[in-house]
Amino acid sequence: MSKKIGITEVVLRDGHQSLMATRMATDDMVGACADIDAAGFWSVECWGGATFDACIRFLNEDPWQRLRTFRELLPNSRLQMLLRGQNLLGYRHYEDQVVDKFVEKSAENGMDVFRVFDALNDPRNLQRAMAAVKNVGKHAQGTICYTVSPLHDVDGYVRLAGQLLDMGADSLALKDMAALLKPQPAYDIVKAIKDAYGEETQINVHCHATTGVTQVSLMKAIEAGADVVDTSISSMSMGPGHNPTESVVEMLEGTGYVTDIDQDRLVKIRDHFAEVRPRYKQFESAITTADTEIFASQIPGGMITNMESQLKAQGAGDRVSEVMAEVPRVRADAGYPPLVTPSSQIVGTQAVFNVLMGRYQVLTGEFADLVLGYYGACPGERDATVVEKARTQTGKEPITTRPADELEPEWDKLVAEAAGLEGADGSEEDVLTNAMFPGVAPGFFATRADGPKNVGKTPEQVAADRAAAAGEPHAVREPIRYRVSVGGRTQTVSVEPA
Amino acid sequence: MSKKIGITEVVLRDGHQSLMATRMATDDMVGACADIDAAGFWSVECWGGATFDACIRFLNEDPWQRLRTFRELLPNSRLQMLLRGQNLLGYRHYEDQVVDKFVEKSAENGMDVFRVFDALNDPRNLQRAMAAVKNVGKHAQGTICYTVSPLHDVDGYVRLAGQLLDMGADSLALKDMAALLKPQPAYDIVKAIKDAYGEETQINVHCHATTGVTQVSLMKAIEAGADVVDTSISSMSMGPGHNPTESVVEMLEGTGYVTDIDQDRLVKIRDHFAEVRPRYKQFESAITTADTEIFASQIPGGMITNMESQLKAQGAGDRVSEVMAEVPRVRADAGYPPLVTPSSQIVGTQAVFNVLMGRYQVLTGEFADLVLGYYGACPGERDATVVEKARTQTGKEPITTRPADELEPEWDKLVAEAAGLEGADGSEEDVLTNAMFPGVAPGFFATRADGPKNVGKTPEQVAADRAAAAGEPHAVREPIRYRVSVGGRTQTVSVEPA
Repeated sequence: MSKKIGITEVVLRDGHQSLMATRMATDDMVGACADIDAAGFWSVECWGGATFDACIRFLNEDPWQRLRTFRELLPNSRLQMLLRGQNLLGYRHYEDQVVDKFVEKSAENGMDVFRVFDALNDPRNLQRAMAAVKNVGKHAQGTICYTVSPLHDVDGYVRLAGQLLDMGADSLALKDMAALLKPQPAYDIVKAIKDAYGEETQINVHCHATTGVTQVSLMKAIEAGADVVDTSISSMSMGPGHNPTESVVEMLEGTGYVTDIDQDRLVKIRDHFAEVRPRYKQFESAITTADTEIFASQIPGGMITNMESQLKAQGAGDRVSEVMAEVPRVRADAGYPPLVTPSSQIVGTQAVFNVLMGRYQVLTGEFADLVLGYYGACPGERDATVVEKARTQTGKEPITTRPADELEPEWDKLVAEAAGLEGADGSEEDVLTNAMFPGVAPGFFATRADGPKNVGKTPEQVAADRAAAAGEPHAVREPIRYRVSVGGRTQTVSVEPA
Repeated sequence: MSKKIGITEVVLRDGHQSLMATRMATDDMVGACADIDAAGFWSVECWGGATFDACIRFLNEDPWQRLRTFRELLPNSRLQMLLRGQNLLGYRHYEDQVVDKFVEKSAENGMDVFRVFDALNDPRNLQRAMAAVKNVGKHAQGTICYTVSPLHDVDGYVRLAGQLLDMGADSLALKDMAALLKPQPAYDIVKAIKDAYGEETQINVHCHATTGVTQVSLMKAIEAGADVVDTSISSMSMGPGHNPTESVVEMLEGTGYVTDIDQDRLVKIRDHFAEVRPRYKQFESAITTADTEIFASQIPGGMITNMESQLKAQGAGDRVSEVMAEVPRVRADAGYPPLVTPSSQIVGTQAVFNVLMGRYQVLTGEFADLVLGYYGACPGERDATVVEKARTQTGKEPITTRPADELEPEWDKLVAEAAGLEGADGSEEDVLTNAMFPGVAPGFFATRADGPKNVGKTPEQVAADRAAAAGEPHAVREPIRYRVSVGGRTQTVSVEPA
């Protein structure tokens, strides 16, 4: 027995997104591309909402140019992106023609594999994007977001898998963005999908490493029949990131599962990013070991941090535990959405409002939209009283239709909007960039000609920081002004290295 | 189906030994003991050679007092130690009566479980210590050191397991000190031992996390029948340390294996050490993610570091790769010892000598002893030419007997030696302390009355370091002398905060 297991290397997208707030410049990735291209990965994840956003917000990089660079430097690789269904890479639903355009331009610029997901697992939010990918002849990967709730079970995931396959999914992804997927459910879900739809149904498994259990989950998923697993090169792995590529390759030795990955290439990729990583230290979070708290609280770490800062801003920093107790109730009232961006923020903020101002005295606009159905369907019933309050407060009616059906055609309007922006080049790519991030794109277009801005530190800056941290008191790097007494007379002097 | 899996918590011994050079003071552990005692661990590892050594070398602590403190604070727990067979906690073989005495006094002071191992897996180096443990009615755990070589296979480990059981082992430990144990061999070895000696044979599995694969190995070992696994609380886990206790507990959910660990206690233990850990930052190594290099090189990380510094000291820092190529040859010539302290150092140093001075032109005394059999038996044949060189160079004859059989009774001599030392209190514990570390114990006895010295920083010192690292250029904390030019005249001035 010998089965080939594919590896999706995520360092170019989710790896640095999870470990260093998506700040890595294209310039710091190109040096690794030849080795990544030759290592033998099933695909290379390299594009998504956060990387697109960070490109124009922080790095003065054109995200489409980044994609074309990857296409050129990774000629033998399947390029993979994460696409938020009807939201594309933005934070609202787009009308169908925009979905078609986005997928078409992404394919044209070099994208091969589209991992399409929806935060609520509402298949109606996926279907247009899936169809668009099929229409351009690319690989459509339908995604199941894994979460834990009284209403999420293996049968539900199997049902969703069937709906995705009915849409023509070339493969399925089991996406565990919160590192909640334990070994037994990983096994059970993959096994049940394979049993239901056939051994040849391709299943890709994506886990974060946060809780310290998911490498075992990858093993059990593989034993159940999973075909491809996501990993990140070791020097950009673990903590809130992913399981290390090298470790997953090594873990399979002797099991009958083989990856055929070129391990010499992995060493080179690792060394490249080991050199790059320290330059982005300022963007790294503090967590380095495993954090299993989420299993007990069911509340993702980032969500707790958000709620804490909201409470502190209101002078109510001592009410975190009340809010944490309120979250499961709010989630239940909303019909048990998975807690993942953006639903985690929506539920968390409403829980904060409930604690500070009384339960549902004030609804956030987003929470009202959620319970009114404007984000899509949730697995459970919404609380009728809360829905009624949302209706009254917003004047909007609850919907049960596909949310995007409520939208008017908007492509021409988006084209016109982009045309009026300083620095926009008239391309459909620019139209889409502005459509995704209308608050950020205009500023980017205006400064685009200045070229990319690398926010990592230079090796010299890192060395200087290190010297300072090591406590070298004489390491004065810029003029410092002191008041100094010499022979009884006080003068102000400027001191700098000779 | 439901099987209880025991957990050995190692934070009090191997956890801080692996992560912070064994520097943690007893004082920083006592606050966690009530929670550790109540969490429901199978055992609590808390004593061994390195902790004993660090107590007297760095912390001015009496290691026997540390043991008594644990006994008092962990009344409901099995206390566990790591015992290096005939070496006890020292770096040479001791005569049998010393072995008996050491085990007797350890049991008297509170030890319950003795994990007895030998670096070469030579059962003759274990048998006296195992018998001594049985004689005092304590739990004798016979240990298999896991390594990889052309001569180490499942059958060999099963054979060794049988020899340990014949010695009366109450349980077996599979000890993977280098994080080399992959999931499939973990499964195969545990399964084969259970098949050979019965399901009721207790098997404990000890893995380090270094390579990022061994949590999966623990899972597969459990599936094969392993009964107890070693973990360290999450805030003191990963990297060169161990898999996180909480993650291993969570990983088993729904599998039919249960730990019955009180997870609320784990949170408290975690928080305790999360607060302690930053104070020992100066002793931490840089590795935080997985390092799989050892799978390719077969050379433990610490051994490479040692060889590099030896080469640099000789002005030959550029010859590391030659030495790394020489190591497997030297290991083969020595009959394939496992590469673990002390054999890793012995083989590594000889490889350095071979590269610098010509192959076997000069043998180290330790390497000569190794090939002459004075450390015990290796699985392979020693190279006859090298053995002959060792004989000529040292004037010693090769032996095939149990090394300790070559020793004269030495207890009375050790008692007399200790009696002459300033500050020794006449106890047999002091005799043993001096016997283990004769170069360190006298200094410790002389200063013992001063009491423990905590080498972790105070919270205030840590805060000051953090401020300095954050790059506050004005944070001058002590007078600094500068040459300063004011109005054309140069003077030397001293600057300090006003």
